[in-house]
Amino acid sequence: MKTVKVGVIGFGYWGPNLARNFFDLPSAELVAIADLKEDRLQRARSFYPEVRTTTNYMDLFNMDLDAVVVSVPPALHYPIAKHCLENGLHVLIEKPMTQSSEHAEELIRKAESKELVLMVGHTFVYNSAVVALKKFIDSGELGDIYYIDTARLNLGLFQRDSNVLWDLAPHDISILLFLLGQDPVSISAYGAPCVIDNIFDVAYLNLIFPNQVPAHIHVSWLDPCKVRRITVVGSKKMIVFNDVENEQKLKIYDKGVDAPEYTDGFGEFHWNYRSGDILIPKIRVSEPLRQECHHFLDSIINKTRPESDGHNGLRVVKIIEAAENSLRNQSSKEIFAWDTLNMPALRQM
Amino acid sequence: MKTVKVGVIGFGYWGPNLARNFFDLPSAELVAIADLKEDRLQRARSFYPEVRTTTNYMDLFNMDLDAVVVSVPPALHYPIAKHCLENGLHVLIEKPMTQSSEHAEELIRKAESKELVLMVGHTFVYNSAVVALKKFIDSGELGDIYYIDTARLNLGLFQRDSNVLWDLAPHDISILLFLLGQDPVSISAYGAPCVIDNIFDVAYLNLIFPNQVPAHIHVSWLDPCKVRRITVVGSKKMIVFNDVENEQKLKIYDKGVDAPEYTDGFGEFHWNYRSGDILIPKIRVSEPLRQECHHFLDSIINKTRPESDGHNGLRVVKIIEAAENSLRNQSSKEIFAWDTLNMPALRQM
Amino acid sequence: MKTVKVGVIGFGYWGPNLARNFFDLPSAELVAIADLKEDRLQRARSFYPEVRTTTNYMDLFNMDLDAVVVSVPPALHYPIAKHCLENGLHVLIEKPMTQSSEHAEELIRKAESKELVLMVGHTFVYNSAVVALKKFIDSGELGDIYYIDTARLNLGLFQRDSNVLWDLAPHDISILLFLLGQDPVSISAYGAPCVIDNIFDVAYLNLIFPNQVPAHIHVSWLDPCKVRRITVVGSKKMIVFNDVENEQKLKIYDKGVDAPEYTDGFGEFHWNYRSGDILIPKIRVSEPLRQECHHFLDSIINKTRPESDGHNGLRVVKIIEAAENSLRNQSSKEIFAWDTLNMPALRQM
Amino acid sequence: MKTVKVGVIGFGYWGPNLARNFFDLPSAELVAIADLKEDRLQRARSFYPEVRTTTNYMDLFNMDLDAVVVSVPPALHYPIAKHCLENGLHVLIEKPMTQSSEHAEELIRKAESKELVLMVGHTFVYNSAVVALKKFIDSGELGDIYYIDTARLNLGLFQRDSNVLWDLAPHDISILLFLLGQDPVSISAYGAPCVIDNIFDVAYLNLIFPNQVPAHIHVSWLDPCKVRRITVVGSKKMIVFNDVENEQKLKIYDKGVDAPEYTDGFGEFHWNYRSGDILIPKIRVSEPLRQECHHFLDSIINKTRPESDGHNGLRVVKIIEAAENSLRNQSSKEIFAWDTLNMPALRQM
Repeated sequence: MKTVKVGVIGFGYWGPNLARNFFDLPSAELVAIADLKEDRLQRARSFYPEVRTTTNYMDLFNMDLDAVVVSVPPALHYPIAKHCLENGLHVLIEKPMTQSSEHAEELIRKAESKELVLMVGHTFVYNSAVVALKKFIDSGELGDIYYIDTARLNLGLFQRDSNVLWDLAPHDISILLFLLGQDPVSISAYGAPCVIDNIFDVAYLNLIFPNQVPAHIHVSWLDPCKVRRITVVGSKKMIVFNDVENEQKLKIYDKGVDAPEYTDGFGEFHWNYRSGDILIPKIRVSEPLRQECHHFLDSIINKTRPESDGHNGLRVVKIIEAAENSLRNQSSKEIFAWDTLNMPALRQM
Repeated sequence: MKTVKVGVIGFGYWGPNLARNFFDLPSAELVAIADLKEDRLQRARSFYPEVRTTTNYMDLFNMDLDAVVVSVPPALHYPIAKHCLENGLHVLIEKPMTQSSEHAEELIRKAESKELVLMVGHTFVYNSAVVALKKFIDSGELGDIYYIDTARLNLGLFQRDSNVLWDLAPHDISILLFLLGQDPVSISAYGAPCVIDNIFDVAYLNLIFPNQVPAHIHVSWLDPCKVRRITVVGSKKMIVFNDVENEQKLKIYDKGVDAPEYTDGFGEFHWNYRSGDILIPKIRVSEPLRQECHHFLDSIINKTRPESDGHNGLRVVKIIEAAENSLRNQSSKEIFAWDTLNMPALRQM
Repeated sequence: MKTVKVGVIGFGYWGPNLARNFFDLPSAELVAIADLKEDRLQRARSFYPEVRTTTNYMDLFNMDLDAVVVSVPPALHYPIAKHCLENGLHVLIEKPMTQSSEHAEELIRKAESKELVLMVGHTFVYNSAVVALKKFIDSGELGDIYYIDTARLNLGLFQRDSNVLWDLAPHDISILLFLLGQDPVSISAYGAPCVIDNIFDVAYLNLIFPNQVPAHIHVSWLDPCKVRRITVVGSKKMIVFNDVENEQKLKIYDKGVDAPEYTDGFGEFHWNYRSGDILIPKIRVSEPLRQECHHFLDSIINKTRPESDGHNGLRVVKIIEAAENSLRNQSSKEIFAWDTLNMPALRQM
Repeated sequence: MKTVKVGVIGFGYWGPNLARNFFDLPSAELVAIADLKEDRLQRARSFYPEVRTTTNYMDLFNMDLDAVVVSVPPALHYPIAKHCLENGLHVLIEKPMTQSSEHAEELIRKAESKELVLMVGHTFVYNSAVVALKKFIDSGELGDIYYIDTARLNLGLFQRDSNVLWDLAPHDISILLFLLGQDPVSISAYGAPCVIDNIFDVAYLNLIFPNQVPAHIHVSWLDPCKVRRITVVGSKKMIVFNDVENEQKLKIYDKGVDAPEYTDGFGEFHWNYRSGDILIPKIRVSEPLRQECHHFLDSIINKTRPESDGHNGLRVVKIIEAAENSLRNQSSKEIFAWDTLNMPALRQM
């Protein structure tokens, strides 16, 4: 196969970016675009006059396609992806892969039985700054990983059928799995539905990775500042990945603290603090989505397993499921409920 | 009483700042300084040649003092403060008040029975930016408080007898109690001892306040960047207090999101996002410790209860105790432990 | 005239942005695109399949157009714009309008005699932050304007036929003319050709406006940081326009210094410094180029004179000519040449 | 001589810092402090009870001193320093050394004839970040120096007997002389007295160093933001020294542009832009004034010539004199006065 014939299902917020990349990439041919809304299809045709459009994604099954991209609302990921796999098409699904792990597992089985590529759009795994960050970790330059802290905050976009966990946390979870190359051993979460009942818009996740490495994720739809930050603290060095910066995305701090080798038990600790240079490495900028689409095509052409394959997507879904369970049962975790009975009333301030 | 005769017990890291302020304030007379180490006393005499110095704090009981400031290692707060109260002295204790709530309660009883002022050095309650922040909240300008998020990070001063919870969290907890004027209804915490066994150097606290208002505290001795930030998200406006900034400490964002009044159940949500001006109000700068010392003197002279009295100190200690219990029992919270049995092995990356 | 039929001449760096806007604006019809290079025209056709393309701009004269946009290298602005005006077309020229004031004057005469719209692409005059800045100045909120300082720095796009003065300064000069509504009374400039002989890549301009208001412009192709900043200092308030910021482009500082009303001649000055709130007003974001294109169409349809008309373009060209003369004669200004004869030799360091 | 007996003349804004350092340095003995104001002397005695104080600096001549520091208003630098030299004392004068080059030359002659150390308080020459910056330049790591741009802006401190040139520019001029190790070959300046007649509060200096290396200095008492920045642009690398940063004062950019080796005269230039890593080297923090005081003592004890000796101070004074002449004669430089006669009146906007 020289070029992969691709159809895009869903031309709303993210679909146009996918279509643009498959249109531009030489190893793909953008054949068709499906969307329920005619005005979106009209816009698609104005950009790509040669592309076929339809309001019924099932029409794509008769267009001699090799692969489809599913960028529809999360609730439709499972049925549409399944249908496409059943029709022999390689599938790239936007994140989150599905809304339940059972559905994800079913898609994996489907794809494996048909020997089709099933890939999930965890874009950050294809982000050159994240790849560089992983290289620094793997090289041992950071030493042992002490902990990772992430924050993904913004004002908005509220969605009716989702919450901040399913919307934003897949990014951070897929980054953590990629950086550490391991599954977490335990998961818990806290959060709150501030604006609308039952729709969590702020959440904190605690993941413990093997060797007691903790990772903490803060996601919010309700913050005045746009924050996209990952801090990796190692025993030798520390790195901050600040995705809001235009150019200086990674900062490597030659900082640390060494425990005293010997203490007499009575005297004070003699900590050894290190604070050396800071390095901001040049990261070659390339659109992560371009890399992702390219990787999907490569996997199809070379019959290889993509980095963010179905199993990777399943992992992320399972972690979010566990976190959401924890979130919804958080009252049961309040084992140290505060006893105000014995406290004098707070003074009026 | 015109001027309060003050003695300072402990002239290590923080004591010199207290001594300087009581020396400068007109309603106080700095009479004596006690410390176990002679070289520190020598330094004290070089600054304040008229001040009496001693290596035995009990000598202060014979110096006709009115009040003492206890700025010794936390483990000594309780016995020394108790001794001073028993000798009829008003007491200002550095934070954390004590290392157990029983001890704090005992000090409160002691002070109340002797009608002495007992105050805890929760400096931020006397910080003009925090006071301004509370005024914005109380005025209703922020609307309902949705949630509060705080971070206090640094490459920090590791201590043998403490941990990051007892060292840094008192600041944030005392600020939260001050801002909200309420006790939390539940507390839990996560964290890790990264560098030394058993000494937690990273911790996350989840406090739920009445009306389901969550507050999240992140404290760390292991971060490459110095962070001192409090974000208060209200239904009408949002405020960020960034204490690392020299001048622009408070930023008030006229930002928010309003839920749709009506949805038809099928259509999309029509959220109303607001994003207006940002105001950086001029905060009159004054040393918070100066305000704190002044408030202590005022409470003695006017026989009033200080803002950060013993009960306030006790509240903070109780919350930290609860958080530390939660921290040390966090394995019991891992109710959603990750089942790796059913997952295919992670690919080697 | 309902819609204006537009042709774009030059489809290199900037032309595609112009084409996109005229394609999108309802009061225009993008009819034709001309460029010397066939590969650019091919790209144009892939975006706008209905648009006619040609390598000879003169073909546009037979296409029943109303107007053209000239976005070719500066040296070609004059001959092509003149040719288009002679063929009865309204003309929008990219900045700088021409490379000499004589040419600019000739284009103005041509356009006026034929009653055609002649407009120059001084985009910043259509930038919503600059418009807001002008409103703050005109409202008197800043008080008297003391001085204006601008910086436009980058690791820049070196050009063979231009220099940093002709490339970057038109932006700042057009902004100054717009903000102050006056011509400067004197101009001088300093600079250096650092990388290539004779091509100035760093320049400083001093413009004195009426009432002795100085404005200083720093433009550079050789700076490690991207800077786009205008500081307006008034007697009552000060504003910084930082165009590198994504959202917080304008900051209004309630700062100033008042001279003492009375001094006794012996005592010290009693200056009154004010330092109040900082306001970051919400600026409604819209693409300045969209506003510019819209304004061009409006001027044609309503037969009005555009804000950045030929006279405005001529003013900018004249100021740059004067500045370049000053730059090239700067040795004659070195009236305070340093006499090193009487100085002992500098020590070897 | 083991320890140098030092007297401080002037205990106003800066004198206390000098006194503190000479009090702390082991090779000095702080013997006496002189100031016209009794309340300042009282404050001095409260800090240094052993130090002798007087309102008449001439009393210091009878105290067996070795050296004095002159930190009085600039107009008194010359007479007091001269008097001290005549009385056989080594002298450290605050910047600017004097208010005229004649006076500076006289002080140099005086000091040389008596073999006394004469040093000027150009603090930045003893600043560890500036010293590191000079090392980077001298090592050739930056390549050829293309140009240097400096900015020292603030709201403030207006002085009656001075202007922004004499107040702030000595810092930047002494830094430039130190970094480049050469005298400028020409000097000119622009500026304005915005608030008070005749007191220049904004100024721009253009210095040309040998090999046509330009340096541009911007000093202002009228800016809303505190700026302390030096940008050194070399042919290989670029460095920004930002003194407002607490820790990250130097940033070394591996950026540049190389001219094309060959151009065919018709084709486009093929510039080679480099943009690599950014390095923020760890600068060991030490108080520059401490280094300066230490250097003064060293020069006395070892009979060596200080880095910022009288000749260095004279150079700075001569450059400021030339710049001020240029500033006060700037109308003569307006050789490209703007001819508004031929321009149509500006439209009312």
